[in-house]
Formats: sequence, C-alpha cells, structure tokens
Amino acid sequence: MSQLPELNRLSATEIVAGLEQGRFTAEAVVRACLERIDARDGEVGAWVALNAEAALAQARERDRSGTRGPLHGVPIGVKDVIDTAELPTQMGSPLYAGWQPPFDASCVALARMAGAIVLGKTTTAEFAGVAPPATRNPLDLGRTPGGSSSGSGAAVGDWMVPVAYGTQTGGSTLRPASFCGVIGFKPTFGSYNPVGVKPAAESFDTLGLIARTLDDIELFHDVLSGDAPGPGRRLERAPRIGVLRTHLWDTAQPETMAAIEDAAARLAQAGATVEELTAPAGFDQLTSHRVTINAYERARSLAGEWHTRREALSARMQHICENGFAIGRADYIAALRAIENFRLRMDAYLDGVDAVLTPAVPGEAPLGIDYAGDPRFQELWTLLHAPTIALPTHQGPSGLPVGIQLVAPRYGEARLFAVARWVEQGLRK
Amino acid sequence: MSQLPELNRLSATEIVAGLEQGRFTAEAVVRACLERIDARDGEVGAWVALNAEAALAQARERDRSGTRGPLHGVPIGVKDVIDTAELPTQMGSPLYAGWQPPFDASCVALARMAGAIVLGKTTTAEFAGVAPPATRNPLDLGRTPGGSSSGSGAAVGDWMVPVAYGTQTGGSTLRPASFCGVIGFKPTFGSYNPVGVKPAAESFDTLGLIARTLDDIELFHDVLSGDAPGPGRRLERAPRIGVLRTHLWDTAQPETMAAIEDAAARLAQAGATVEELTAPAGFDQLTSHRVTINAYERARSLAGEWHTRREALSARMQHICENGFAIGRADYIAALRAIENFRLRMDAYLDGVDAVLTPAVPGEAPLGIDYAGDPRFQELWTLLHAPTIALPTHQGPSGLPVGIQLVAPRYGEARLFAVARWVEQGLRK
Repeated sequence: MSQLPELNRLSATEIVAGLEQGRFTAEAVVRACLERIDARDGEVGAWVALNAEAALAQARERDRSGTRGPLHGVPIGVKDVIDTAELPTQMGSPLYAGWQPPFDASCVALARMAGAIVLGKTTTAEFAGVAPPATRNPLDLGRTPGGSSSGSGAAVGDWMVPVAYGTQTGGSTLRPASFCGVIGFKPTFGSYNPVGVKPAAESFDTLGLIARTLDDIELFHDVLSGDAPGPGRRLERAPRIGVLRTHLWDTAQPETMAAIEDAAARLAQAGATVEELTAPAGFDQLTSHRVTINAYERARSLAGEWHTRREALSARMQHICENGFAIGRADYIAALRAIENFRLRMDAYLDGVDAVLTPAVPGEAPLGIDYAGDPRFQELWTLLHAPTIALPTHQGPSGLPVGIQLVAPRYGEARLFAVARWVEQGLRK
Repeated sequence: MSQLPELNRLSATEIVAGLEQGRFTAEAVVRACLERIDARDGEVGAWVALNAEAALAQARERDRSGTRGPLHGVPIGVKDVIDTAELPTQMGSPLYAGWQPPFDASCVALARMAGAIVLGKTTTAEFAGVAPPATRNPLDLGRTPGGSSSGSGAAVGDWMVPVAYGTQTGGSTLRPASFCGVIGFKPTFGSYNPVGVKPAAESFDTLGLIARTLDDIELFHDVLSGDAPGPGRRLERAPRIGVLRTHLWDTAQPETMAAIEDAAARLAQAGATVEELTAPAGFDQLTSHRVTINAYERARSLAGEWHTRREALSARMQHICENGFAIGRADYIAALRAIENFRLRMDAYLDGVDAVLTPAVPGEAPLGIDYAGDPRFQELWTLLHAPTIALPTHQGPSGLPVGIQLVAPRYGEARLFAVARWVEQGLRK
C-alpha cells in the first residue's frame, strides 16, 4: 500500500470505487485518516472522540464482506450533537460529559447501513449554538474554522476524513465549510431524518453535509434520502443564474464582493444567463423574525437542562434562554406566520432562475477562535428552508478561501447539484 | 383531610385554587392519586412506572414553598415516549427497558418549572405506534382504552391524575380520550416544544393533552406555550359551526352518526349557526398521502434501532419499517407537497366557520385490547396541522362514551377553546 501514500485525501466516491477495484483496503483508508489525525489534531483540535480501534475493526470487516453498500468503507466524522451508540455524544457542554446514547442517530445508522464507518465525533459549539470549541482553522491556526460545526469543517478541510455531518440552524454548516475551503450543503428543511440530533430551534434545524467534492455531497444526499445513488446530476444547457446581493451586502468584506462579481462575470462568459435580482419586499425583515423564533425555540429546547442545571450553561446561552423564555406565543406565531408566507412566495421567486448566486460568508475566516463568524448570509436560506450549497471557489487577501453560495427552491436539490457542477467547471476555466 | 375524600377527582385548576386557599395540601392530593392508582391499576394497567416517594417529597416541598407557579402542586402523568430524568423512559419497547434519559423533555421541564409534579409514566404502544400495551379501558375492562397514549387516556379517565401528556402522529391523543370519556386536545403542529419526545413521523408528531375539563386544557396550553394563564376563553356571540362528515362517514358506527346529528341539532337550538360543509376536492386523498409520509418517516426514525436490533421490534413494526425504507424520496416529496398545498387551502376553508364539527372516533371503544381502534377520523386533522379537540359529549349503545371533534384553523387555539366551551354548555341544556 505504500505506493498510495495519501489515502486520506481520497473522496468518498474515490474510496468506494477504489475498494470495488481492489486498489486498496478499507483498513488502509481508515489507518491513513487516523494517521493524519494523529499528526495534525494536536494543533487543529477537530475531534472530541475517536473510534480508532472499532473503526479499524469495522474496516477489516468491510474488507472481508461480500455485501457492498453505496458508502462501503467510507470513514465519516459526526458532529458531537448527533447521537452515536459507539461513542459519547457530549454536545459541546459539560452537562453531557461522557453521555452515551443508546442508539445511533438516524443519519448515522443510515450511513452505517450503507457501509460507512464512524471515525469519531467532531467538535461543536455548545449545543450547536454560540460558545465555540477550541478548534482551529487548519488553513491558518490563528483563525476560527467557523461554527457551530467547527470540527466537521476543520476535519474535512484538513484531509482527516472525506465527509462529515454538520447541522445548520443559522449558518453552522455552510460557514465552516467556506472558512475551511470545502463544500457545505444544507438540503431542504426536513430532508434528512432528525432523530438523534439534539435540537436547537426546531423550525430551522437542518442536518447538512461537509465534503470536498460535489460527487460526495450527492452520494450522501442520495443515501440519506433513500434514493439509489446515481451519476452526478448535470445540466443539459447553460443555467440561468440570478445574483442576489441581499440587504446584507454592506456587511460583506471586499473579498466576498469581489468573489460574487467575479463569479457572475465568469459564469456569463462561460455561457450562463446571469441577471441581477432584487429581493422581494420584506426580505430584509427575515433576520429579525428569525431572532424571535430562534430565541423562543432555543430556550424551550433547553428547558430540561435549564430547569435543573442552568448554571452549567455558558453565560451567553443563559442569556439567550432568558430572552427566549420572555417571548410569548403571540409574538412567536406572528414571526412563524411571516416567515411561512415569505417561504411560499420564495418558491416562485427562486423558480424564476435555475439558482441564486449570493454571498456565503462576509469574507475570509476571522482572526482568533473566540468568534466563529457572522451567520447572517447563511441563515436567510436556512429559515426559508431552501437547499443551499457553498462552493470554495475564491480566495481573500490572506490567501484563505471565500465561498460563494448557490440556492434553489425547496426540494430543488437535483437542480442545485446540476447547477453547482456547471458553476464549478465554469469557474475553473 | 378526611372530609375531602376525593382529592383525586379534582381538576388541575381546582387543585391550584384549593392549594392557594389552603383547603388541602399538595401532599394530600398526590396521596389521593396514588391511593386511587393503588386500588385500581392492577386491573387498568395505565402506569409503567410510578414516582411515588419522590412525588410525595416534591408535594411536601410545594406545600412549604412560598413561590407558586401556575401548576403549583398539580400531579401529572407522562406518556412513556417522553423523557423524564427521575424515571425510566421505555417507549413501550424492550429496546429501552430501564433506559434513563439524562434530562426531562421540554414539556416535562416546563410543567415542573410551573409547579407540577410528575406522578409517573403512562403506558404507550411500541414507540407510539401499532403494538398496544396491556392497558384496559377503565369504563369497561373488556375493551381497549385506545392508543397509542393508552395509559394517559385510562389514567385521566379513571381519576388517577387530572392531566396527562399524550402524543398524536395519527390519532393517539384524541382517540384514547374519546374512548375513556375525557377531553383530548392536539394543538397546531409545532406548538409545544418536541425536545425529549421520541419521534414517530416528524411531519405529524404533535404533543397533546388529556384532561377532564376545558379549564385544565387551557391552563396547560398556556404554560406550554409560554403565556400567562388567564380566564377561560369565551365567545361573545353564538358560533358558526360547520358540520363535516368527511369521506369516512360510512366507517362511522350508528352511535357516532347519532352523536354528530344530535350535536348539530342541539347546538342549532342553542343558537349556533350550523351549516353542512362539503369537503374540498382532494380531501379524500389525504389518507393515502399520510400513509406514504408516515411509513417513510417512521422507518427512518427507527433507523438506529433497526440497524442493530430489528429483531426486538414487533413484527408489525418491522413490517412498517420495511415498507417505509422501500419508499424513495420522489414519492415522499410528492406526498409532502400535496399535503402542504392542502393544508394552506384548509386555513381559508376552516376560517369560514368558527369551528368544524366532525366525528372524533368511529364509535365506542372496541372490545378487546389487541386493537386500539381506527385513527382515521383523528389523523385527518393531525396531518393538516390544525388544532383539534375531542369532547366526551355522547354515549353509545353500551353506555360508553362517544366523543365529538371540533377543529379550528392552524393557530386558532383561542377560538377553538371558546367554541368548545360554548358547545359543552350548549349540549348540557
């Protein structure tokens, strides 16, 4: 196996194909990932718990087994708000130190049923919320990897594992993906079964994927959706792309503005129909409705912990809960209704183009690790329940990645993947 | 206290008021409920686990305490798919025998924060699904209490506890309430925080309440919604009531048909405007869309258990899971979209009257305890996310209760409570 020194750099799709062809073993892949983690994680800190021996044993089992699922032998990372029967699930909170759930979360079980191997648990902000873990951006250890799926972004970005699960209530999957130079994908709300994922705000919580290739995103999407994986979706013609700067445009740093302008220009050159979109009236109020809903739901989601152990929550989480408990049902429902109405209008709006091109993040990953970055560009689409993907197409002034974001109407995953593939190739030229 | 021999028959509202007035102690109330359980539960079998000593200790604490929440000293029953930190949560499945979650579910913590006392866990069908527990209807031990919230219906119906939590994915709260002669209420989907409640099918799962009085339903609704409890909602004028027989009318037994006809006639006599409604086109297809969504989601909700321990699921649950895993994403999304479109149309339809009057159940509780009854009259409104209440207003040929059902548009709880109060009084005349 020594002629294949970088098995940890393979994508999930390449691992499945290589195992099928007998080019290497699942054990060698898992070992390569564990070696990378061993070499790097002292600095990066992407993992809370590793399943090293069990993962190697499962890899050897896969190598011996005649049955091959679509994720046969693929090592994955699982954000530590997602239940795993073999490893503790600690939620980024001392309240769950060493806690071991009785069964795997649905998304973990579905991946294992398809042949995947859980390599370990990746770090998370406290309850996928505000207090970030001590994880560092693998591309610049002085910066945040983003959050709250900090460890999943860092682990995939640092070649420790090809795919990791994230969750996104605001911007917790796409932002770490953008900061760590990989792909972040959040499907339509409700696409992946949420059982075994600690809820944060149930109107927005969405399981997502972080990976290095579109092939891998599509592969896992199909497995988690209950579809047989097929070849990557492709467009039959050049896409119509709508550029939406949003009311947050002024919060973007120059590198994000440049990324969007550059992408729009080069995609037009490549043959896309690119048009400037105006946000529908009321779009700029979505952010404040989200604050109401998020606080109301977050407080009640932590009612069990709050009732008996509130002193063990971070000061910021306590503050969020206090604010949330003070919101009454009338204000909550008014915000829910406003967003629902908007969501339905956005189906038609988004359907006017093949995909919307919009900033993924304000810019490069911020310096320091105490602040995981601004979620507002990502959370607009989370609250609208639209499928959205961040592609690491550009760089900022420090040479660090700056993602762009593509959005499709609800349930428009197939179209989104096809456009993303076209965009990726269009920007490579 | 001996001059108050039936403290177990008090409503939650009466308990709170009596404690405030110093007429009895919380300890005496809890003791009376425990004595009732001790006397009757050998036959009824409503409880899986009792918290007797801790509940008495908490009652004494409430009696000593200066702070009074809106549920001060009220004993409650909690369906055993809902997490409790003090008692095991066993899901009606051997897979969770003795399992102890680390924290209370949100709804349990919110009730305890308001002063309630968890008396114990009530029986449930396996994962709130198909295999009913060995619970008997307290009004006729030869019959089912309904399901899947079997123990909650039986415990409230048998004066063991004033209020108990149920969950409803199809008809699991309103049906046992109707069969046991008490009130069942399911709010608008999403109204009560679902954290700590084992999911069955996430598009439909709704926490609900079983109680003996409308006052108690409103009291708990306010607490779980984050509102300060107020006086019961009342109408300022006689309501407009629409009678909807639905495409399932032919499945109703004579006692249900008679109950609806009688209620319609007497409410008109009492001054209501009563009109016959025709279901909108497509309404009769909701049932089959529900089957698709329910099976798809149920299978994936149990993926963790299925992956490693499927042999410990009941044969019927295994069958449901197998069917569910065979459903692909396209069929699932088509059903989701069809129901979503219908749901939005029904908002306006339901808004044309103050409430819809419709059968709650096909008739009296069926004989035997192996079949918990037909959920279809209840599940129509669960899948539409509409708030709905079953009132035990009528009786069948065996002298057993037959409920009627009132439905309001989504988020129309205040109106629904006011109409229900008017209807309850109108039918008393």
